[in-house]
Amino acid sequence: MAHSAKPGEFELIARFLAPLSATEPGAFMLTDDAAVIAPRDGHRLVLTTDTLISGVHFLDDTQPAYIAAKSLRVNLSDLASMGADPDCYLLTLSLPAGADGGWDAVWLDAFSQALMIEQQIFGVVLVGGDTVSTPGPLSVSVTALGHVPDGVWATRSGARPGDIVMVSGTIGDAALGLAALQGALEGIGDAEREVLVERHHRPQPRIAFGRRVAGLVHAMIDVSDGLVQDLGHICETSAVGATIMAERVPLSPAARSVVEARPELMQAVLGGGDDYELLFTLASGDRDAAYAIGRELDLPLSEIGRIEDASFDASMGGSGVVVLDGAGDAITLEHGGWRHF
Amino acid sequence: MAHSAKPGEFELIARFLAPLSATEPGAFMLTDDAAVIAPRDGHRLVLTTDTLISGVHFLDDTQPAYIAAKSLRVNLSDLASMGADPDCYLLTLSLPAGADGGWDAVWLDAFSQALMIEQQIFGVVLVGGDTVSTPGPLSVSVTALGHVPDGVWATRSGARPGDIVMVSGTIGDAALGLAALQGALEGIGDAEREVLVERHHRPQPRIAFGRRVAGLVHAMIDVSDGLVQDLGHICETSAVGATIMAERVPLSPAARSVVEARPELMQAVLGGGDDYELLFTLASGDRDAAYAIGRELDLPLSEIGRIEDASFDASMGGSGVVVLDGAGDAITLEHGGWRHF
Repeated sequence: MAHSAKPGEFELIARFLAPLSATEPGAFMLTDDAAVIAPRDGHRLVLTTDTLISGVHFLDDTQPAYIAAKSLRVNLSDLASMGADPDCYLLTLSLPAGADGGWDAVWLDAFSQALMIEQQIFGVVLVGGDTVSTPGPLSVSVTALGHVPDGVWATRSGARPGDIVMVSGTIGDAALGLAALQGALEGIGDAEREVLVERHHRPQPRIAFGRRVAGLVHAMIDVSDGLVQDLGHICETSAVGATIMAERVPLSPAARSVVEARPELMQAVLGGGDDYELLFTLASGDRDAAYAIGRELDLPLSEIGRIEDASFDASMGGSGVVVLDGAGDAITLEHGGWRHF
Repeated sequence: MAHSAKPGEFELIARFLAPLSATEPGAFMLTDDAAVIAPRDGHRLVLTTDTLISGVHFLDDTQPAYIAAKSLRVNLSDLASMGADPDCYLLTLSLPAGADGGWDAVWLDAFSQALMIEQQIFGVVLVGGDTVSTPGPLSVSVTALGHVPDGVWATRSGARPGDIVMVSGTIGDAALGLAALQGALEGIGDAEREVLVERHHRPQPRIAFGRRVAGLVHAMIDVSDGLVQDLGHICETSAVGATIMAERVPLSPAARSVVEARPELMQAVLGGGDDYELLFTLASGDRDAAYAIGRELDLPLSEIGRIEDASFDASMGGSGVVVLDGAGDAITLEHGGWRHF
């Protein structure tokens, strides 16, 4: 078969995508109309889908390996936030028509090789998808399937007044990494830049932690729209308010050095998205149990605030979440967080 | 809440999409990161996804109700071709940014109301999705989930030399309907035009028939790329060849009247896609059993050809499928069928 610069649909599937499905017989090497998968006894299915569009969700010049990694990881993070383990995924590639669509066989090779590595890291397999030509930008859509034991999953809706608010890992790296890519962080050191950009491109879904902590939390979400906005989603769904203490929000050494030089960037840390850490609320009496799970996974946790009753929000005139500085004064966020439109 | 002409992301989901999920508690009214669904004991999951892009898969001026119907139905047809019953679906809307993106609250209202009707017709429910802004064209992506009993499903890969080839319903209506919409069928009667265009917009997935016949067939596919090309997919996956007798291909009265007036349109019938009938092969001894299932569902079936061994194709110098006219001579197709690119 000719290795053309732009393979046709059927060659594309056979050459670049079918190998990603080889370990799942029910994917039929992507030659059939649908996949046939055995569910797990005693478990629920967990389903999520996210689309990333060039120029909207990633910069136009992003390397295909990063696009592959992020497309899969943002979906796995959604599964993690429910406490689910991932099993398989479907992939829809919308590829620009025309000679200069920003993709070719070399692009597809890098993209599919990166997906193969991602599959090994996360123990998932491609089971289906669609490949279409578009007059629009390149976009990658993933639907991920996972499982949770019957009765043991987390949602956004169970937060209760008096709960403590905790978050895994560090916050703000991805937003600062994006700012660095956009040339907005002049003077940043090379090492810091590299750490932050890598966190933007290849977020780590907290799957093992999500699964372990799901039975303990009252509400959980992954930080994808921004810390404050995502806590706001929990508040809205749970009909509660919340306080965050800005000084307790965990920063990586790289983010801390950037924010110390330019304190106004704390806005990006609190409002920017894409960290894909887990944000959750639980009874204060379960704090130690959560920290113990974190220790078993080498994952630092931070207690950053508490859940208030719903009237708290209204009395503050805010959007459900109040961020307090070290002096106990409310911080106003210029940018509430990511919205698609 | 203001009924703006273009609702923001969260209003859009709450107002137009969440009501479509109301009957499935595990969809959490679309407020969570993922859906949690109970699988059926003794069944396999069946998964498929298809994306329709404005200007590529449907004409730019297509009404939102038709876009909604077709987006769902093409996916349900993929489930039908495996012999699966549908359960639920995820929906990704990529909506053009800017003032004149071709959508607004009125568009969304018509789109979501049509989906509600489709859900009632097919017994499915929305359980999740994604809503994104795009600089490209409007596109609608559906991932559909269904189930089959353990061990009873159809694929494309089991066709055997000597099998007969059968197809449900009528072929070519959708391709002729598209031609009518594109102004290529001057002089066609209003009644014929209406029938053909409706079949293009709202194909009927053969779910009940697919489920009933799945245990009988050797190979099955839905006609989405075109009769000849889709039979070619069966041949390729099954490593066989096939013959179709053109005169046996079932035409609706509307299609027959169009083709009688312009015989060259038989090319569109054989090569055009989008009929979403089921095309299947089975042992000739099971012919009567298939017809009996068709009668129980008021669905006419037609025997249109037979499966040959793989060397047949090579000796004819063709692509796996040979179409014979009434005199037994091979017909050359100008257009092999739909390819995405």
